[in-house]
Amino acid sequence: MRRAFVTTGAIGLLGATPIAAQDPVEVARRHVENHRVEMVEELRNFLAIPNVASDLPNIERNVMALVGLMEKRGITTRIMETGGAPIVYGEIGDPSLPTIMFYCHYDGQPADPAEWDQNQPWDPLMRTGPLDDDAQVVPWSDLNSVDDDWRIYARSASDDKAPIVALMHMLDAWQEAGIEPPNRLKFLFEGDEEDGSKYLPGVMREHRELFAADLVVMADGPIHPSGNPTADFGLRGLVAVTLTVYGPIQPLHSGHYGNWAPNPAMRLAQLLATMKGPNGEVLIDGWNDDVIPFGAEELEVIARYPHDDEVRREQLQLGSVDGNGSTRLELVSQPSLNVRGMQSMYIGSQVRTIIPDVAVAELDLRLVSGISPTRQAERLMRHIEKQGYTVVRETPDSLTRLASPLLVKFAIEATGGHPAGRTPLSEPAAQGLIAALARLGFGTPVVSPTLGGSGPAFVYTDILGAPFVVVPTVNHDNNQHARNENVRLGNFFRSVEILAAAATAQVRVVP
Amino acid sequence: MRRAFVTTGAIGLLGATPIAAQDPVEVARRHVENHRVEMVEELRNFLAIPNVASDLPNIERNVMALVGLMEKRGITTRIMETGGAPIVYGEIGDPSLPTIMFYCHYDGQPADPAEWDQNQPWDPLMRTGPLDDDAQVVPWSDLNSVDDDWRIYARSASDDKAPIVALMHMLDAWQEAGIEPPNRLKFLFEGDEEDGSKYLPGVMREHRELFAADLVVMADGPIHPSGNPTADFGLRGLVAVTLTVYGPIQPLHSGHYGNWAPNPAMRLAQLLATMKGPNGEVLIDGWNDDVIPFGAEELEVIARYPHDDEVRREQLQLGSVDGNGSTRLELVSQPSLNVRGMQSMYIGSQVRTIIPDVAVAELDLRLVSGISPTRQAERLMRHIEKQGYTVVRETPDSLTRLASPLLVKFAIEATGGHPAGRTPLSEPAAQGLIAALARLGFGTPVVSPTLGGSGPAFVYTDILGAPFVVVPTVNHDNNQHARNENVRLGNFFRSVEILAAAATAQVRVVP
Repeated sequence: MRRAFVTTGAIGLLGATPIAAQDPVEVARRHVENHRVEMVEELRNFLAIPNVASDLPNIERNVMALVGLMEKRGITTRIMETGGAPIVYGEIGDPSLPTIMFYCHYDGQPADPAEWDQNQPWDPLMRTGPLDDDAQVVPWSDLNSVDDDWRIYARSASDDKAPIVALMHMLDAWQEAGIEPPNRLKFLFEGDEEDGSKYLPGVMREHRELFAADLVVMADGPIHPSGNPTADFGLRGLVAVTLTVYGPIQPLHSGHYGNWAPNPAMRLAQLLATMKGPNGEVLIDGWNDDVIPFGAEELEVIARYPHDDEVRREQLQLGSVDGNGSTRLELVSQPSLNVRGMQSMYIGSQVRTIIPDVAVAELDLRLVSGISPTRQAERLMRHIEKQGYTVVRETPDSLTRLASPLLVKFAIEATGGHPAGRTPLSEPAAQGLIAALARLGFGTPVVSPTLGGSGPAFVYTDILGAPFVVVPTVNHDNNQHARNENVRLGNFFRSVEILAAAATAQVRVVP
Repeated sequence: MRRAFVTTGAIGLLGATPIAAQDPVEVARRHVENHRVEMVEELRNFLAIPNVASDLPNIERNVMALVGLMEKRGITTRIMETGGAPIVYGEIGDPSLPTIMFYCHYDGQPADPAEWDQNQPWDPLMRTGPLDDDAQVVPWSDLNSVDDDWRIYARSASDDKAPIVALMHMLDAWQEAGIEPPNRLKFLFEGDEEDGSKYLPGVMREHRELFAADLVVMADGPIHPSGNPTADFGLRGLVAVTLTVYGPIQPLHSGHYGNWAPNPAMRLAQLLATMKGPNGEVLIDGWNDDVIPFGAEELEVIARYPHDDEVRREQLQLGSVDGNGSTRLELVSQPSLNVRGMQSMYIGSQVRTIIPDVAVAELDLRLVSGISPTRQAERLMRHIEKQGYTVVRETPDSLTRLASPLLVKFAIEATGGHPAGRTPLSEPAAQGLIAALARLGFGTPVVSPTLGGSGPAFVYTDILGAPFVVVPTVNHDNNQHARNENVRLGNFFRSVEILAAAATAQVRVVP
């Protein structure tokens, strides 16, 4: 299923009359003031399309919507097929200029409608504020009094469709004003991010020239809670592992067999308990061995960082935090081991008095620069073996079961995970981006050497050889990856200015 | 909703002509030989009625079917309303005779149709043998060649509808032959057993006189795998506890918060791991303190017991068993702690890279004579507190969350559980029952002082003051409480003889 290269008419920036005196960020700000309802409507329509990466018919609808948004702004657009959700690519501007490539993803995490406080996750709902503040639902017909504190609730509202729509309005602003940014702009919109960016590395290797850039700006993730412009120069890697601990070949009556037949749920609990200490410290040998330490610039940035851990702790109603007193930023700069899901038989109304046959834990291992996904997964596997387990990679047969006092299946995600990516703060493009954000006028940029989240950043650093930065714009309390995801409109509107600053950053050293 | 006392016409035993020379067990055996298809059809029809205790409309259908089965045999029948599924009671025979009361339950465990290898758990399927032996499905029209090794697959096939139908055919046999047993017979059929026998104690207290008996025979559970007649003189008690460990107020992105926000799934794992040692030994203080030790008769019976642990271990494909070398019978005679279900967020296709907000474990604590459900649950609670947990009984508010570094909700099942029941082997009724089973002619009775399973036996020992015995009849590999529950026809047919022996046991000392 190969598609044609789609080119739109030349109604782009080059045809407009430049007005040198106009500041592109100021132009973007004024544009938003006059187009708030239009922005909200455009985002609402985009959010109404379900966007789980594996749901290809709906992914196709997203692609068509995205191409529509881009062509409306005169972006030369190209749909690049992959083995799954296509990549939508576009470019605009003078090829002789320095190049900034914006990355967003148009897919979202799976969502269980039953958990959401609305009809369903892809039926956007507007409320006057956060759900727990007794926010009122606002009918879509009442947008005339639209307010910064209002929020749109929908899957991908923040992660990651709002930045895409904001980028489009940045272009609208400049086209209306007839100005041109100092950089050529590329747009890379991925549809498979939440499913592990399986296809991005391959596409990136195949199209190194096409994607060449002086700086890649990933518009994804939440801005610092202070609202100050935020720049993160690294993303953790990720490798997911599924552990299946085996008990009897079928669930057993817990009366007739309890105390005798081993319980796989208890064994899984005992196994997991060996992996972390009481303060969340990972107890697996060599877990932090290959970590590349931060340089002087990074350590300085961490020292200056406006830590807000106590505020977050209270908002999240946590009676304690892990990490022996280290800050959240320090902790998410380290490799992690997280139990993201766990199940053995049933809880609640389906519960039965049985010994389960299997118990499953889903783990995500976050990686930092220097750590290979394969080696980290192997460290975990060795640790499990040290606990006396026979580790198999496929569902075991009866002989293996009978021969193994302790038995676990260890399954690494099909993609094998991906490593971390990090841009040294000493890079000129990094310095130019920070300076551009500082000029925005709403606070000192909050800079971190790496974000805790993962993303396909290694494809820029390792494949393209390009510096990259994450410039997040949405509210920090957006319920990303969870039920009731939302975007606060004030953050959505301001995204346009922030992205305009990034798009006009000086990314090469002037000779 | 009170119902009338239902009395049938006097077509019962008293009207028939006694033929003294006929042995009641032999009569039952011959009857079965000539009525196998009829028995299978009657069980099939009974199994086709869904019978989860909470599903009252279907429970009502079961009650009507049961009354029909009983009235057909001339049993004086009474439907006793409870707060849930009714108790169906009946009696037959001369009130001046010694009395044996048979207990069965007509409800079954909940069942997830998706797990079963057939249309659904209440659509009985006949196969030529065990499912994993490539057994063939037998059309219901092919019953003329019915074989002992065939099995009926359906929820409650073994647990506990087969014994009910067998009891009915025992009466048919005697009525056809015109003989009378030496005991008056009572029948107590409960509809709430799998939901914890919530109402039985109250009904028992209210009707002590009505239910008075020299011996209660509970026809439930699997016969010893040897096929020898089996008698168990105790049942463990049971109290179920649900543990909910709290993390952040909502699931969090595991990248932005991993290593910092505590993970409730990991904490639950660490908490559970403190409860049992590597060989399944319970590590909770005082767990076995109040156990009433066995007497000389019980210890002798345990020593003589035909242990089959190694056979079971191989059948269940277990590479190891818990208990430091003790036998299964010894182990299920002790109090237990079992994780019957466990969940935190999702596994499989719904998995997401998050830190869960809660993690839940469902525990069942089995009790033996001497241990109070309340005290045992308290021991578990104290143990959890000793691990540093704040233990709450209701869902905690935000202040409690913020004030509690480790926080768990500890919920005991609504009924509060029930204690164990045990009949000393020195009781005359116990000796008479064992002697009756010995006369059956198919092997030395396999006697145990207690079964591992739980049931409302304390209502007989503690409320009625009557000795009781469990006389199980169905195949041991019946998948009780699990998917693909079944009854082997050979065991179903032989149930009639076994129950006939029990019904004719000498339960009083002859002066």
